[in-house]
Amino acid sequence: MNRKLFLAGLALVLGAGYALISFSQLRPEVLVKQRQSVMTLQGKYWYRHLRPTGQGKIPYDANLVARNVGFLDALSQMPWDGFDPSTKDVKSAALPAVYTDAAKFKEAQDRYRGEVVKLVAATKGGDEAAVKAQILAVNKACDGCHENFREKQ
Amino acid sequence: MNRKLFLAGLALVLGAGYALISFSQLRPEVLVKQRQSVMTLQGKYWYRHLRPTGQGKIPYDANLVARNVGFLDALSQMPWDGFDPSTKDVKSAALPAVYTDAAKFKEAQDRYRGEVVKLVAATKGGDEAAVKAQILAVNKACDGCHENFREKQ
Repeated sequence: MNRKLFLAGLALVLGAGYALISFSQLRPEVLVKQRQSVMTLQGKYWYRHLRPTGQGKIPYDANLVARNVGFLDALSQMPWDGFDPSTKDVKSAALPAVYTDAAKFKEAQDRYRGEVVKLVAATKGGDEAAVKAQILAVNKACDGCHENFREKQ
Repeated sequence: MNRKLFLAGLALVLGAGYALISFSQLRPEVLVKQRQSVMTLQGKYWYRHLRPTGQGKIPYDANLVARNVGFLDALSQMPWDGFDPSTKDVKSAALPAVYTDAAKFKEAQDRYRGEVVKLVAATKGGDEAAVKAQILAVNKACDGCHENFREKQ
């Protein structure tokens, strides 16, 4: 075989190998750590600021609401690929229903994400009462998922 | 004292107490967990997709780049309040310089954040070569901070 052709072929094979490694499945423990990181960060902005704002327990700060709703818009898209079937035996608060009733779990995800999208729109609209009401709607969607798919805390 | 006035006063005091609790300082361990969660998630989108895209090691997927750069735009704003002085004795990879050279640490944060803002703009511009070059600029800013403020991994 021509040496140049051999080297070109070798480069191709190695290149494909690299791409495969790069896209190969992450270890289940890493997937769980990533999805738990999302929950930690949603909690950071939710429990200390957005939820008490919706409940009228702290003063309404429109700039902070806009920032934190923007964060939630990103975060609310991040956890779901971490609930891969490969993670079902990793210790976490996820209930077996996540894997045995995947369609219902997907519905609960979509309901939550849908309420967050409405919250993003409400925040851009700038009507404080509408934003607060939508924060409570998001809260209900959080709880809906937690009740059926997460161990009681 | 008039009973109604007393109850109104009590409600005010309890209300203020609630707000104080709500805004009180989080435990240092919680702050560290939150900031580490941000690093985990930046890693999720950086090492598996954005960086190899910038390096030309995987095919350019404009939609995925736009989504992940949007995620990075949010994430890159989140970790910094977690490096509170109260956390300096919590075990983590943060070097003492984070707290002893706070001004230089802030500069490194701002440099990183500035490069991410430029990446967001480049992504909206839609020029693949410009996006790839800016991904590499962000990568340099990550490394700059890690070299001086994080334990060698």
